Amino acid sequence: MNLVAPDVGGRSAPVQARLAASALSRSHRRPSGAPAAAAGRAAHGAHTEPDVSVRWLARSAGRLRMAVDRVALDDLGGWSRDATTGNLGHRSGGFFSVEGMAVEAADGPVGSWSQPIIHQPEVGILGILAKEFDGVLRFLLQAKAEPGNHNGVQLSPTVQATRSNYMRVHRGRPVPYLDYFRHASRHRVLVDVRQSEQGSWFFRKRNRNMVVEVTEEVEMRDGFRWLTLGEIHALLARDDTVNMDTRTVLGCLPVTGTDLTPMFDVPGSDRFRTALVRSCDPAAGALHDATGVLSWITEARTVTGIRARLVPLDEVEGWRRTAGRIHHRSGRFFEVIGVRVQAAGREVERWDQPMIRPVGTGVIAFLAGSIGGVLHVLARASAQPGYADVIELAPTVQCTPGNHEHLPAAARPRFLEEVLGADEERIRFDAVLSEEGGRFFHARNRYVIVEVDPDAVAEPPGFRWLAPHQLGELVRHGHYLNIEARSLLACLHSLKSTAGSVK
Amino acid sequence: MNLVAPDVGGRSAPVQARLAASALSRSHRRPSGAPAAAAGRAAHGAHTEPDVSVRWLARSAGRLRMAVDRVALDDLGGWSRDATTGNLGHRSGGFFSVEGMAVEAADGPVGSWSQPIIHQPEVGILGILAKEFDGVLRFLLQAKAEPGNHNGVQLSPTVQATRSNYMRVHRGRPVPYLDYFRHASRHRVLVDVRQSEQGSWFFRKRNRNMVVEVTEEVEMRDGFRWLTLGEIHALLARDDTVNMDTRTVLGCLPVTGTDLTPMFDVPGSDRFRTALVRSCDPAAGALHDATGVLSWITEARTVTGIRARLVPLDEVEGWRRTAGRIHHRSGRFFEVIGVRVQAAGREVERWDQPMIRPVGTGVIAFLAGSIGGVLHVLARASAQPGYADVIELAPTVQCTPGNHEHLPAAARPRFLEEVLGADEERIRFDAVLSEEGGRFFHARNRYVIVEVDPDAVAEPPGFRWLAPHQLGELVRHGHYLNIEARSLLACLHSLKSTAGSVK
Repeated sequence: MNLVAPDVGGRSAPVQARLAASALSRSHRRPSGAPAAAAGRAAHGAHTEPDVSVRWLARSAGRLRMAVDRVALDDLGGWSRDATTGNLGHRSGGFFSVEGMAVEAADGPVGSWSQPIIHQPEVGILGILAKEFDGVLRFLLQAKAEPGNHNGVQLSPTVQATRSNYMRVHRGRPVPYLDYFRHASRHRVLVDVRQSEQGSWFFRKRNRNMVVEVTEEVEMRDGFRWLTLGEIHALLARDDTVNMDTRTVLGCLPVTGTDLTPMFDVPGSDRFRTALVRSCDPAAGALHDATGVLSWITEARTVTGIRARLVPLDEVEGWRRTAGRIHHRSGRFFEVIGVRVQAAGREVERWDQPMIRPVGTGVIAFLAGSIGGVLHVLARASAQPGYADVIELAPTVQCTPGNHEHLPAAARPRFLEEVLGADEERIRFDAVLSEEGGRFFHARNRYVIVEVDPDAVAEPPGFRWLAPHQLGELVRHGHYLNIEARSLLACLHSLKSTAGSVK
Repeated sequence: MNLVAPDVGGRSAPVQARLAASALSRSHRRPSGAPAAAAGRAAHGAHTEPDVSVRWLARSAGRLRMAVDRVALDDLGGWSRDATTGNLGHRSGGFFSVEGMAVEAADGPVGSWSQPIIHQPEVGILGILAKEFDGVLRFLLQAKAEPGNHNGVQLSPTVQATRSNYMRVHRGRPVPYLDYFRHASRHRVLVDVRQSEQGSWFFRKRNRNMVVEVTEEVEMRDGFRWLTLGEIHALLARDDTVNMDTRTVLGCLPVTGTDLTPMFDVPGSDRFRTALVRSCDPAAGALHDATGVLSWITEARTVTGIRARLVPLDEVEGWRRTAGRIHHRSGRFFEVIGVRVQAAGREVERWDQPMIRPVGTGVIAFLAGSIGGVLHVLARASAQPGYADVIELAPTVQCTPGNHEHLPAAARPRFLEEVLGADEERIRFDAVLSEEGGRFFHARNRYVIVEVDPDAVAEPPGFRWLAPHQLGELVRHGHYLNIEARSLLACLHSLKSTAGSVK
């Protein structure tokens, strides 16, 4: 038996170097330092440009038509309302159900409440296939229409399958490329971790985030395309283009590690980008040491009093069922609606389903700034009732502003004003991105990264300045970074790429 | 704001160097390599010898008398049986309850069963205070009697407190030294992680394992003593001396790290010890890389079909309530019994409580061997119904042999025969140690480390050869190593110390 080389910063260096090469545009790739070989090969690799991908996505959108009509919840074909509980479920027992959740949150601004919630106690697969072409890692993404996408088609992972999906509950066509992920150990696994989904809309839902690298020939199917990380990064800056499932998997990529800094040392970097590049190297240090960060999380998980349990949907208080939908009496938060879908280019052609339609566009933001030349972001320990383990780390701000307008100022989200009022030159990332289009209807959030001076922003209770290399270490394990933080982390890393926005 | 130095292998080097110094006996401490300063100071430190600790423990046992009598469950003062469910609970609503658990384990040798289980949905604190004296880290341990200890007094952590305990449900005396752990962020935190307890006797029970280092003067109370890691290591080799709560906390200590090897480079080391010392250094590599190990765990957690839920105690099948106790009709597994305790030197003087009394002595063993000069242990992905997250890594063997004698050979624990039949010269560690004496009555396991040739032992499904530095990285997070593995990991690391057994 042979030993494998030690991980560098917990990650194997060659993967990280190839990811770095994949993130850089051709003109900026250059052989330098340790990863010279990979970078060198990358520099000569054939590659496409982001605008080519954009045109391909637009063409795909033309072919993948999906007609989505609102229907009353009681009229959903295949779905029924349980006579005792009022819960909405599929007649197969598969897919998911809409139930009620009662929450006790002793420390929160609202002490207790109940709400509808999606219950899907199974672990799905969000998988991206990777392969090296001429020295450059590429990722197989799919142009996919989802009923909840307000613009139809977005870039999805290679595989995006619930367990019902791949166990064929809907008796549709098999899921393409699924076997690479179901038998991942035959290949090189770059990412494989269960992560949570939205903690206010899902009850303890988790998906398996995977990136699997293959060396063999891969059959190319219609609607799929190999993209470099640099191309994906450029597309991330476009509104509603890279879907949530792709973003969470990207957020788990091993893009931090030692000795990668020289690869990103490109001409014209400003102070922010230089600090960002340094912040991907564990050797650069951080404001808090790793034990301190873990202790802070342990403390928060121990003392935070939040308890959530499923209750019959008919028992949620403050919610009304009128005109075929379920909505809060205040008109805030979200509605449960029914949709009828007619699709081309999917596993099945027609179906009905309930969806969650949020009221209003949310704001998801990191405050970010250099501490001693190393970029840090202000992470928040956030308790959401649907989490499996009390709290996860969230972006600095994560809210739908309209839901909080009726609350006293002290109960409004911290730092929301700093984000909404930020000068344009301090806004480093700003795009409206969609949440999962298979469950959420036109759910959009403005993802923002705002540069601040950390010395001018105190660390309030529940917040910590963390370096991206620390987030990269935490995200190897499940339930540390919430889905919004993983998504925004992918956006942050995209700022290292020099391909620039094609907005 | 200032950055802290990067962690070495995820741990700050000074802590690890001081732990190494604390583990070595005076004659073997020497200044060499990077940690020379700490080691040098250690060499001149005042310290006691293990046999002094043994005498102190024996003296303490004389003072801390505890009379424990069996009583019928129905006669337990302060406890009552719920009329509807049959569950046993304390009248205060605090402490814990004995309920039923129904288990569906699709993949196991037994497809489904039900059993009594302890339910205590609160996170207790197991905390050890550390302080440097003359360059040597010492740990404040307590000579403590517990009703379940068959020999009365064992070495306990500084603080061993359930939440009921420290919230004063029993209206007893305050818990000494508790404030150091409730306000840990004022001190230097070396360990702070929630870990699971026994998955067959507890329903999703977790305790917060903590080591907090202080620099201030600490008031010395009766029954407490500062010990070096080397002294504790020597005591670990004695039967029933270091209690389970101390062992799980020791198992979480950051004793792995780069650049520590020279400190343990002592004369007279054999091949096994040399491989063990090397295996504590992440730079030495391992058979499987970190991503592969995490992927293996993710896969096991995704595909393992085990579901456990609480049911009324009256509904467990196969269990009888006769003569004031609850026992399985086969006489196997365990009994729920009642005890009446009269104690001196504890928070309260008298109490009654139910306890779990296992039938027979268990075997908890690692097969261990050198792969490329680096020690590896054969870890098993073990599904137990009481775990919070499906599976945890367990020792190679963990069972009570008597519980399996009626099963077909194929269903008996893998590698049990290799452990029980091992030649004496291959047995590197062998001690009978007690499980938690506050809940378990005379629960004892034989902890064994058996040296094997890994090339001669295939890696069956569900088993992986892992290096101790990999276990050290996993145990920083909750729910990766089960309590038996953490305990045995502490025993394994004790073999690095040269103080030798005082058995």
